[in-house]
Amino acid sequence: MGVRNLEYPKEATNTVKRYNAHAVYALETIHRIVNSSQILHVSFNTTSQPFPVTLPMIGQMGSFDRPSADLGDPLELYLHGYVSSRLMNTCQNSNSGDSNPGEPSRMPVCIAASHVDGLVLTLTSYSHNYNYRSTVLFGYATHVKDEEEKLYAMELITNSVVPDRWRHTRLPPTKAEIQSTGILKVRIASGSAKISAGQASDDKTDMANETMLDSTWTGVLPLYQTMGTPVPSSYNRMDVPGYISEFANDFNADNTELSLGAAKGERRAL
Amino acid sequence: MGVRNLEYPKEATNTVKRYNAHAVYALETIHRIVNSSQILHVSFNTTSQPFPVTLPMIGQMGSFDRPSADLGDPLELYLHGYVSSRLMNTCQNSNSGDSNPGEPSRMPVCIAASHVDGLVLTLTSYSHNYNYRSTVLFGYATHVKDEEEKLYAMELITNSVVPDRWRHTRLPPTKAEIQSTGILKVRIASGSAKISAGQASDDKTDMANETMLDSTWTGVLPLYQTMGTPVPSSYNRMDVPGYISEFANDFNADNTELSLGAAKGERRAL
Repeated sequence: MGVRNLEYPKEATNTVKRYNAHAVYALETIHRIVNSSQILHVSFNTTSQPFPVTLPMIGQMGSFDRPSADLGDPLELYLHGYVSSRLMNTCQNSNSGDSNPGEPSRMPVCIAASHVDGLVLTLTSYSHNYNYRSTVLFGYATHVKDEEEKLYAMELITNSVVPDRWRHTRLPPTKAEIQSTGILKVRIASGSAKISAGQASDDKTDMANETMLDSTWTGVLPLYQTMGTPVPSSYNRMDVPGYISEFANDFNADNTELSLGAAKGERRAL
Repeated sequence: MGVRNLEYPKEATNTVKRYNAHAVYALETIHRIVNSSQILHVSFNTTSQPFPVTLPMIGQMGSFDRPSADLGDPLELYLHGYVSSRLMNTCQNSNSGDSNPGEPSRMPVCIAASHVDGLVLTLTSYSHNYNYRSTVLFGYATHVKDEEEKLYAMELITNSVVPDRWRHTRLPPTKAEIQSTGILKVRIASGSAKISAGQASDDKTDMANETMLDSTWTGVLPLYQTMGTPVPSSYNRMDVPGYISEFANDFNADNTELSLGAAKGERRAL
């Protein structure tokens, strides 16, 4: 936990109404949930249809201006996508009215990340629930043009997939690779998270129902992501290196532990 | 696969532009990806802010009018949420202009579901990618008021969490439980899916780079959800019943198999 324990201010946009005892506004927790998600769901509007559009993307919180910033500091979200994709184009051509003349166009986006940590089975379907960690961020996306900042984001995102992977790949990326990699930077306007953890719980009336208690299993089915044994490519020549096997072992241990901890009521993010 | 192999028509809204060889429009595949997701990300607009709002929700494809419909048939999406939550209220009060006078108000929504099946590590960060299954549906949400249809949806959604759970819970739900359970029904306007599966692949130049080939591990790190050993509640009195342990075993076998199959290039949904 950072020394300052910064929080996103509670405003109309981000205030959690339902189960607000589960709400978290701490930057560190919110950023942690984003960074541990392999997929972020990025939503935005286009002028051509009434529906928001949601794309699954890879992203990571970071700070190009202050790369040493930690997770509890104000950060931007860097998103990776192919340069001609719908979101990149929409952002490029955005006329949302939020930009001043001469400034890069910026597009309002909503980013969601969710992890399910367990299925909580109770006596009545009504009180069934999940143990989960979820977060939603609101912000304005701009297209990153600066080559140095793009490289910063590419390294950040590659290392978020497998820690330390960047320096084990062919470097530097070619000009063509950099040019056709689209990077969006989202300046965060607000955000919130919800963490739910705990065991089954039923109300008094059902707890007095001996027949139900005798005939219904109640408890938590823990759920967690597992990384299996690495499958080498046909042209791979190496044993699995330490930075990959350690990552896989840590990933499995951390996820299992969090899921089992959640079943005991431990509310935390990875 | 259903005998008719229905597809959502390709229109401006849903046509996949990037990696369109991965695109799938078959109803059965799309519905399967939705139904195997514990969490759906539901996005909609409100009048009070420029950002779309995304909520994680539980949902399932179904047909109240024809409960025997199979996954390849046209289906509605039923979403579960607390009745006073933001989405339910927005839907209730929707003035999107899409409803005729006297008809229930309906709200444009986008629903996204994504599974990551593996991390694909190549020689250059640029060609790193994921094996994944993702889908996006567009449609119009209305609030379900009919009590019988609500009960249908509650059973559908409960059994989607754990098959056959509904009839093992206290039945019927009380009036108060039914009233305070909000159910949204989404009439699907269009949808598409993407499935990516395969091994690492690098371009000719990098494949001729002996130093890189000698020093970089390439391949797939399989990723799948695991259901751990059930953790009974303090008031549970039973051994884990067969319908739960079989579900957990099948869930683990199916997810592992799909992830390892994806690393071999097998493109399928669960």
